Amino acid sequence: MADKHLIQYDDILRFSTACFQAMGTSDEGARIVSEHLSLNNLYGHDSHGMIRIPQYYDATQVEFCNATAVPEILRESDTTAVIEGHRAWGQVAAYQATEMAIAKAKKHGVSAVTLRNCYHLGRAGAFTQQAAQEGFIAQFYCGCFGGSRLAPWGGTEARLSTNPMSIAIPTRGEPVLIDLTTCAMPEGKIRVARNSGAELPLGILLDRDGKDTTNPADLYDGGSILPLGGTLMGHKGYALSLAVELLGSILSGGGPSWPGRYQGNAAFIQVVDPTTLEDRETFYDACEEVFKNMRESPRKEGVEEIFLPGEIETRRELERRQTGIPVDATTFGLLEDTAKTLGVEFDI
Amino acid sequence: MADKHLIQYDDILRFSTACFQAMGTSDEGARIVSEHLSLNNLYGHDSHGMIRIPQYYDATQVEFCNATAVPEILRESDTTAVIEGHRAWGQVAAYQATEMAIAKAKKHGVSAVTLRNCYHLGRAGAFTQQAAQEGFIAQFYCGCFGGSRLAPWGGTEARLSTNPMSIAIPTRGEPVLIDLTTCAMPEGKIRVARNSGAELPLGILLDRDGKDTTNPADLYDGGSILPLGGTLMGHKGYALSLAVELLGSILSGGGPSWPGRYQGNAAFIQVVDPTTLEDRETFYDACEEVFKNMRESPRKEGVEEIFLPGEIETRRELERRQTGIPVDATTFGLLEDTAKTLGVEFDI
Repeated sequence: MADKHLIQYDDILRFSTACFQAMGTSDEGARIVSEHLSLNNLYGHDSHGMIRIPQYYDATQVEFCNATAVPEILRESDTTAVIEGHRAWGQVAAYQATEMAIAKAKKHGVSAVTLRNCYHLGRAGAFTQQAAQEGFIAQFYCGCFGGSRLAPWGGTEARLSTNPMSIAIPTRGEPVLIDLTTCAMPEGKIRVARNSGAELPLGILLDRDGKDTTNPADLYDGGSILPLGGTLMGHKGYALSLAVELLGSILSGGGPSWPGRYQGNAAFIQVVDPTTLEDRETFYDACEEVFKNMRESPRKEGVEEIFLPGEIETRRELERRQTGIPVDATTFGLLEDTAKTLGVEFDI
Repeated sequence: MADKHLIQYDDILRFSTACFQAMGTSDEGARIVSEHLSLNNLYGHDSHGMIRIPQYYDATQVEFCNATAVPEILRESDTTAVIEGHRAWGQVAAYQATEMAIAKAKKHGVSAVTLRNCYHLGRAGAFTQQAAQEGFIAQFYCGCFGGSRLAPWGGTEARLSTNPMSIAIPTRGEPVLIDLTTCAMPEGKIRVARNSGAELPLGILLDRDGKDTTNPADLYDGGSILPLGGTLMGHKGYALSLAVELLGSILSGGGPSWPGRYQGNAAFIQVVDPTTLEDRETFYDACEEVFKNMRESPRKEGVEEIFLPGEIETRRELERRQTGIPVDATTFGLLEDTAKTLGVEFDI
């Protein structure tokens, strides 16, 4: 077996769609989840790509996820809606919630939609991007159930999730796409450091006593990740994380993020039609002026280029559409197992 | 002359109102600016309090500010509005813009209002607080003209303002009030460190070559403040700062933040009526559950209490309403000079 496989986007998309169809998901639903996962691979976010298929299948076996559920609109006005996910695929529920928010903003200028009780919705930025690619400004506060990672500022016990937030702004080219967790480092990277025996820099982790530590294993022994801003300015990340908790998890009716609950997501989505506030071409012209000013800044030694948020992903997409997507042997094997279990042809 | 004066809130408010009236501002406008400045003193944000009165007066003398200007509504829909500030007092323009946004959200659930070309609007959190105290969720992206402080991520030259953002969420008690600049440390604190000959920790400043430095003087010699997230995670603060720039400064029609322009503010304000999405008491109950979970977290050594964002300010307000507000002799003297210039009785 090869150490690494290179798989084409279309092949992953086809295989993934077949897997979700085999789990009982509708053709449209299977396509939406699969496009989301495969695009994450193209953008280089492999932790949110095809590697999730086996985990998602497992979730359907323990009632974290219902592969055939259809989200339900509980409340609706001209500008707002409340959606109950019924543990459907988060990508499908959030895609549909965002489509609703876009339609409302198209008619009424602005909108706000909440979504609760869906399974893992993947990359929050996918949904703001969805709106921005149609010309809308979007903000997404993503509530997370099932795993606390951040201590409140001054505390020593993890009591908030990584609580991601995303903002996308349409431009003449690809959207400016801001997508960040409100903690100092994603948990996945800390896990990698632990598994490889590496030390972390100071300013990322607290141990179980709330003391700064460089040992990634301390996270899994009662420690916590520092909020964005780290040792000096972590009160800012704590504040943002709490905003995501209150708007993404609580206002949505999803409930608080701490453990003891099923692992899923909730969201607060806001969409604004910029043309209700400014002429589109005037806005885009002025944005280009800002981008030019960023790109033409003198650079640090060793920095080849100044990027806008989201630009690195766009570059990687172009590259991986050519070269294919690298998949390690372990993930490849797990996908093969899932294909067997589901009775799907393993043709990637 | 005493080293320090203790002044009562009501006295500052009365004196300040008389000053702004003497500059030609309407009674209502003078009251709004003065309440804003005096409340900042109560909250402990003395850098945004009465110390500003002499600076504000100077601004009216060089056309940065027009003390008699009245903001104008350029565009309006059920859910949106665009306001031209005509260099009016920022506090007055932003207060009125927020009142409009609240009225629209009250009727239609959500709203978005932009404001451009006003003079310094003070503390961004004052306006989200204004909406949250009436039961609304508010977000405020504050565009700033006239002084760049942040380099784009990978760059060595300051090309973005400190670009503050604020989110306020109503609760059963005082609002959760998030109010932060998107940089690693406010410029005022760096100035204080320079003046007192203190070193800064690493992770706050870059020198003119984009190298980490602990010398606060480097900021004023072509350096820049790191974005929120510092050396490790500054790409997140850069992304947030750019969002504030594009929404607060550009979408509002205010134009980019870099120098060569007059010193003023612009804003993008969003207001949401939470009751269009969730019953108020259900929302407040679930918020209290989160707050309890934060407050009851085990604490770091030396930490007496876990606070919610905005709580420290509320405590200080109660305290200073009792004790009075401390003012240093230099500021006191400058206020006396301004009173003389304006022909206002110096009775604080």
